[in-house]
Amino acid sequence: MAILQPLIDMAEICYRQGIRHVVISPGSRSAALTLAFARHGGFRAHVCMDERSAGFIALGMAQQIDSPVVLICTSGSAAYNFAPAVSEAFFQQIPLLILTADRPKEWQHQYDGQTIYQTGIFGQHVKRSFEVSPDYQHSDVKWAINRVTNEAINLASMAPNGPVHINVPIREPFYPAADEVFNASGEVRVIQRQENEVVWPQAVWEELLDEWESAPKILIAGGQGKPDAALNAVLDRITEEWQIPVLGDCIANLSGKEIIRHHDLFLGADGAENLRPDLLITFGMSFLSKEFKQFIRKNPPRYHWNISEDAFLADPFQSVTRDIPGKATAFFENLFEKLDYQSFVENTDLGHDTSYYSFWVQNERKARQKKHETLENLSMFNDLTLLDTMFKYIRIEYQIHIANSMSVRYANVLATENEWSGVFANRGTSGIDGCVSTAIGAARLNGQPTLLIVGDVAFLYDRNGLLIDNLPQNLKIVVLNNAGGNIFRMIDGPGSLPELETFFETRHAFSARRTCEDSGIAYFRVSDLAGTEAIVKEFLDFGGIALLEGFTDPVENTKAWKVLKRAAH
Amino acid sequence: MAILQPLIDMAEICYRQGIRHVVISPGSRSAALTLAFARHGGFRAHVCMDERSAGFIALGMAQQIDSPVVLICTSGSAAYNFAPAVSEAFFQQIPLLILTADRPKEWQHQYDGQTIYQTGIFGQHVKRSFEVSPDYQHSDVKWAINRVTNEAINLASMAPNGPVHINVPIREPFYPAADEVFNASGEVRVIQRQENEVVWPQAVWEELLDEWESAPKILIAGGQGKPDAALNAVLDRITEEWQIPVLGDCIANLSGKEIIRHHDLFLGADGAENLRPDLLITFGMSFLSKEFKQFIRKNPPRYHWNISEDAFLADPFQSVTRDIPGKATAFFENLFEKLDYQSFVENTDLGHDTSYYSFWVQNERKARQKKHETLENLSMFNDLTLLDTMFKYIRIEYQIHIANSMSVRYANVLATENEWSGVFANRGTSGIDGCVSTAIGAARLNGQPTLLIVGDVAFLYDRNGLLIDNLPQNLKIVVLNNAGGNIFRMIDGPGSLPELETFFETRHAFSARRTCEDSGIAYFRVSDLAGTEAIVKEFLDFGGIALLEGFTDPVENTKAWKVLKRAAH
Repeated sequence: MAILQPLIDMAEICYRQGIRHVVISPGSRSAALTLAFARHGGFRAHVCMDERSAGFIALGMAQQIDSPVVLICTSGSAAYNFAPAVSEAFFQQIPLLILTADRPKEWQHQYDGQTIYQTGIFGQHVKRSFEVSPDYQHSDVKWAINRVTNEAINLASMAPNGPVHINVPIREPFYPAADEVFNASGEVRVIQRQENEVVWPQAVWEELLDEWESAPKILIAGGQGKPDAALNAVLDRITEEWQIPVLGDCIANLSGKEIIRHHDLFLGADGAENLRPDLLITFGMSFLSKEFKQFIRKNPPRYHWNISEDAFLADPFQSVTRDIPGKATAFFENLFEKLDYQSFVENTDLGHDTSYYSFWVQNERKARQKKHETLENLSMFNDLTLLDTMFKYIRIEYQIHIANSMSVRYANVLATENEWSGVFANRGTSGIDGCVSTAIGAARLNGQPTLLIVGDVAFLYDRNGLLIDNLPQNLKIVVLNNAGGNIFRMIDGPGSLPELETFFETRHAFSARRTCEDSGIAYFRVSDLAGTEAIVKEFLDFGGIALLEGFTDPVENTKAWKVLKRAAH
Repeated sequence: MAILQPLIDMAEICYRQGIRHVVISPGSRSAALTLAFARHGGFRAHVCMDERSAGFIALGMAQQIDSPVVLICTSGSAAYNFAPAVSEAFFQQIPLLILTADRPKEWQHQYDGQTIYQTGIFGQHVKRSFEVSPDYQHSDVKWAINRVTNEAINLASMAPNGPVHINVPIREPFYPAADEVFNASGEVRVIQRQENEVVWPQAVWEELLDEWESAPKILIAGGQGKPDAALNAVLDRITEEWQIPVLGDCIANLSGKEIIRHHDLFLGADGAENLRPDLLITFGMSFLSKEFKQFIRKNPPRYHWNISEDAFLADPFQSVTRDIPGKATAFFENLFEKLDYQSFVENTDLGHDTSYYSFWVQNERKARQKKHETLENLSMFNDLTLLDTMFKYIRIEYQIHIANSMSVRYANVLATENEWSGVFANRGTSGIDGCVSTAIGAARLNGQPTLLIVGDVAFLYDRNGLLIDNLPQNLKIVVLNNAGGNIFRMIDGPGSLPELETFFETRHAFSARRTCEDSGIAYFRVSDLAGTEAIVKEFLDFGGIALLEGFTDPVENTKAWKVLKRAAH
C-alpha cells in the first residue's frame, strides 16, 4: 500500500490531533481508509452497516466528547445516507470528520458501479468540503492530504464546531496484500491550531452598560447547549445578585434553582405581555419553545443582545440589535464584574426593575403547581402519565435523550424540575431520522445511565441503529407508542382534517417488541395507569439495555396535552 | 387555501399530464401538497413514513410504468432521505417528480426547526432542480408554478428519463380549515411536449456501412434495459440472418434463444482473446459483467458504436468511436433494412466472419453445460443451490428483482436460461440501500408475481420499506442469509485480510423472521439441501406475500462460487 501511504498517514494525523473514535460502514473502495484506522491501534472502531444510522451514531459520540469523530464510507449513494446526520451535525454544531471514498473523476457517469457526483455532496451542510487528487505519489498531493487532514480536523473543532468533509478518490488496487503492514510515515506533520480568546474592548462595555442601565426589565434566555458548570455559576450569581430572570428550555441545560422552565405553559396566557423585556440577552442554539419565540416576536424588546461564536447571525426572535461575538460564559463573567464594579462605584442598583423578576418567578411557580395538579388529576393512562412517572424515578446521574416531534414537547414541560446530567435532542434540523442512533452513539461514550424518550414513528424510522454490535448496556429506551404520528392530532390544522389518520398520523399497529428480541434488548410494556409505577421501577432497575413501550391512545393523549397546556392560563 | 391555489393546481397539471401515483411522507409544511393530491380524486396515494424507503418505492413504481411518480416530503432533512433513491433514479433513468416542501428563504439557518439548505439539494442527480417563490398571489409566481410543473413533468419523461425536483417554499398558515374544498382552478394550463423521432441521414449510413463491411467480427452487446419486444425481434433477425452474436446480462432483458448470457463464466479463460470483435455495437445502460468490461478493455475493437438517447457519453469499455444518438430499436431496424438491401443489391455476405459467431455460441453452450454439471455436483447447501432450485420453479410470468452485491452476481450466472417477464436491479448507483423498497414499489403496480432476491445486509438495510400499509401480496422475497456481507469474502482483496469478518463482512446473527411477523409476511426458512425443493415449492405456491430465508455458510458459498466461476475455464 505504499501508493496509499498518504491515506495511512491520515489516520496518524487524526490520532495525533486527539481523535480516538471512528465509525465505519463496510465497503471495498474505502478499504484503505478502513484499514488505516483499524490497524493504527489508537482508535476504537465502531462498525455500522447502514450509513444513515452510522452517521447519527458518530454524531451522538461527538456530541458527548466535543471532539471530532471520523466517519468512513465507500463510494456511491453510501455518502448520501450520511447526509441527514451531516445536516443535523452542522446545525447542532457537532464536530465530524467525514471521509467518503470515491472513484476517481474519470469514472463519473460511466455506468461502472457505485459512482455518483460526490464533490460537495453535502452542500452547505459542512463547514467545508475538501477533495484530494488520486495521484498519491505526487509530492504536491502528499502535501495536500497532510494539510487538508490537519485543516479539516482543526476546522471541525473550531467554534462553531461542525462537520467537515474530505472526498477521497481511490484507484485500484485498493486492498493490501494479506501480510502487508500499515505503518504511518516517520515524519507525519501535525499542524496545531492554537487557542485564542475573545475580549471585548472597554468602549464596547460602555455602550452595553449604557443600554443595560436604560433597560429596567432585563431577561436572559438560553437556547440549546450542553451542561456547563461555569456558565450556570455565573448565571446563578446574576439571578441572585441582580434579580434578572433567566429562561431555558430543557435542552438549554441550565441548572439554576430559579431558572424559568415552564414558559410553554404560561406565555400564551392573557396578561403575558407584561413579561416583555426591555433588554433580552440570548445565547446558545435552538429554542424549543414556540410559545417563547412567538411571545418575543409579538413583544419585541427595545434591545436584544445575542452572544454567539458563529459568524452567521441567527435571529429567530426577529429582534437582535447587537451581535456579540464570543462565548456566553466569558461574556456573562465579564458583564458581572463590570456591573458589580459600576454599582459599587456609583452605589446604584442600575435602575432595573426587580418586580419584573418577581413576576416571572410567580408565573413559573404557578405554572409548576398547575402542572402538578393537572398531572395528578389525569385518570387515564397516556403519554404524559407515563413520562411523569418516569421522570420521578430517574436519578440525577441520568443523561436524557429526547426524540423530535411530541417527545421533545412533552419533555420541555415535564423534564424540568430535576437536574439531570444533560438533556439532548437533535434540534439542529429537528428531524426524526436519527434519534435512536444518536442516543446509541452518546451512550457508547458517556459512561452514564442514559434514557431515550422516543415516539413510535421516530423509533421505527431509525431502528437500524439497533443493528450494531455491542449495544450500550447503559441505555434505556422509552417508546411512546401511540400508533402513529400523534403530533398531527395535537397541533392546530391537521387535527380536524378527514385525512388526519391516513396522511398525517399514518396509523399503524407495529410494536417495538420483536425489534428488541432481534437485538437482545430486554422488553417491558405498559398500557395502564395502575401498572405504570411498578413497571417503570422494574425497567429502570434492569441491569442492561432495556426498552419500555407504553401503548397509549392518541385521542386520550391529545386531550391530556391540551388540558395541561391550558392549565396555567 | 386560496393563497395556495397554485399548489392545488400543480396536482391538476400532474393529473392532466398523465400522472396517477403519488408517494407521500407525512409532514406539516407539506400539508397543502399532500392534500392537493389526496383530495384531487385522480391519484392513488401511497403513504410511507420513512423518506428513504418512500423514495425507492416511488422509483420501483416509476420503473414499471415508465411515467413519472410524484414524491412529496416536508421540509428539513426529510429531503436528504430521498437522495439515495434520487441518485439511483438519475443513473437508472427513471422519471420522478420530487416535490419538497420548504420554509421560505428568510428562515434558513435561523434555528427555527426543520430548515436546511434545500435549494439544489440533490446536486447533479436530478435533470433539473426548480424552485418557486413563496408569494403565491403574485401573477408571475402563478405563471411560473404552472410553467415549472409542466416543464418538470415533460423533462422527467423525456429521454433519458430521470428525476426532476421542485423545491416549494410555503408560508404559514399551511393547513386549510376543516371544511375547506380543494378544487383546481378552471383554466389550468397544460403544456404538452410533442413527441419527436430521430432519423439518421443517408451519409451517416454510408459511413456506418463502410465500417460494418470492413469488420469481419461484429459483436452486439446490450446494457441494462427493460424488456422490449420490438428490440428483441430485430436483434433476433440480425442474429439469425447475419449470424452476429448478441450478448446481454440478465438485466439487459434480451430474450433471443441464442443470446450470449454466460460470458461471466468464460471470458476470463485462456484463449478468450479470440473473441475480440472488430466492431462492437452497444446500447442500454449499465453492464453487470465485470468480466465483459475487462475483456473489451483488454481487447478493444477497432470500431465501437454506442447507441444512446443520452447527451452525456458513457464509455465504460474505453473504446467508443461513434456516439449514435437515438433509440436502439430504431437504429437496428434501420440497420437491418440497409444491410438487407445492400447484400441483396451486391449479392454479398458483407464480408463478415460467421465462424466468429460460432465461436461465441460454442463458448456459451460449453459454459452452460459446465454450469449445470457444477451445480449438480454441489453437495452442500449454499446460496447457489438455493437459487438454482428457485429458478427452476419460478414461472415465466414472474418479474425478478435482484438486490446489489452478491445477489446480482449470482443471478447473472443462474437466472439466464428461462425467460422471465423482466429482470430488474438498481444498477444506476449499485447501492444496497433501496432494494427491498424498489421491489415493493414495482410489485404494487406490475400486477405480476414478483420475486426479490436479496442478501441479509441489503434486506436489513432497507427493511423499513416493509412498514408501509398494504404490502403487495404478489411479492415473494428470498433472503440469502449468509450472516453478513459475503461478497467481501468472495472478491480478491478482503478475503484474506484478518479484518474480514469485523470490518467487511460485519458478521451478525439477525434473521428476517421477526420483521416478517411484524409486517404480516408469511415466513419460510431453509438450511439444508434435502429440504430445499419442497420448501421452495411451498413458498412459491403460498397465496400472498411471503419470505424465504436461506441460512447459508459464507465459507461454503465462497467455495461454491469460486468453483462455478472457474468451471468453464
